[in-house]
Amino acid sequence: MVKVLGIDPGLAQVGYGVVNTADPMTLLACGVIRTRPGPSPGERMVEIARDLRQLVRQHRPRLAAVEKFFFYRSSNTIAVVQARGVVLMTMARLRVPTLEYAPTQVKRTLTGDGRADKDQVLNAVMRALCLEHPPQPDDAADAIAVALTAKFHQFHDDSQQG
Amino acid sequence: MVKVLGIDPGLAQVGYGVVNTADPMTLLACGVIRTRPGPSPGERMVEIARDLRQLVRQHRPRLAAVEKFFFYRSSNTIAVVQARGVVLMTMARLRVPTLEYAPTQVKRTLTGDGRADKDQVLNAVMRALCLEHPPQPDDAADAIAVALTAKFHQFHDDSQQG
Repeated sequence: MVKVLGIDPGLAQVGYGVVNTADPMTLLACGVIRTRPGPSPGERMVEIARDLRQLVRQHRPRLAAVEKFFFYRSSNTIAVVQARGVVLMTMARLRVPTLEYAPTQVKRTLTGDGRADKDQVLNAVMRALCLEHPPQPDDAADAIAVALTAKFHQFHDDSQQG
Repeated sequence: MVKVLGIDPGLAQVGYGVVNTADPMTLLACGVIRTRPGPSPGERMVEIARDLRQLVRQHRPRLAAVEKFFFYRSSNTIAVVQARGVVLMTMARLRVPTLEYAPTQVKRTLTGDGRADKDQVLNAVMRALCLEHPPQPDDAADAIAVALTAKFHQFHDDSQQG
């Protein structure tokens, strides 16, 4: 069983999804790491790193997948990108190889359309994993989508090598 | 002796300076943590976190000071901000309280002019620490400047409280 951990980084919340990519693909776990606004950004990122470590110890993913970030001016942006640094560093420290995919890549891989909307991506996620209901909480869906993207790209790479 | 660790974050290089803020102020150490371009960003940030931990263990600073970041569109920006997240997280994990100062705040504090150029800041750093020569390597000067800013602001806060 090859497990992929998808991560949707943020400071207030980090979405995650663990997908078993063996046939048939199944969703093993998903959820959101939430941090309280009180402590400093540094302390909140310590919590994120600790919870990610816990997830990796529990699920032992072969691979992690994270969305690439593109900039727009926003006061939230710095906090998100800083947290993203902590996510990448934590995965590297735990020796989990980590792939990055642009949002358009995720959308195109799952739906065939790089400009697909949130519902189209959600439907593709549900179809791929044979889910009867949308994954809960909502914020985990993006993390699952990027995990599936890594899986589909891996398939593609394998077939090219063969 | 109250030590302040100033940090100038980046992915390829992280400047640092350790200032003894007791009168007379002295520069205890300064330098640059450099990471090789080969490994992934995550692995480079693991190196940064490890070297910062080493610095904190060696010097036991009471306080860390880091420049606040402001955005401009650049492909380097994301890497710098991600590394900045790792710096803040590492300081929080080591329980070193960390203050952040905007670049204009650093310039105004050291020179009286928020738009001072690099040489004016460097001269102010050299005067404050009675240095005969510019600190080496060059890239450490910004880190020392932000450490001094924390010191001068602390003075200011103390006098306000008194």
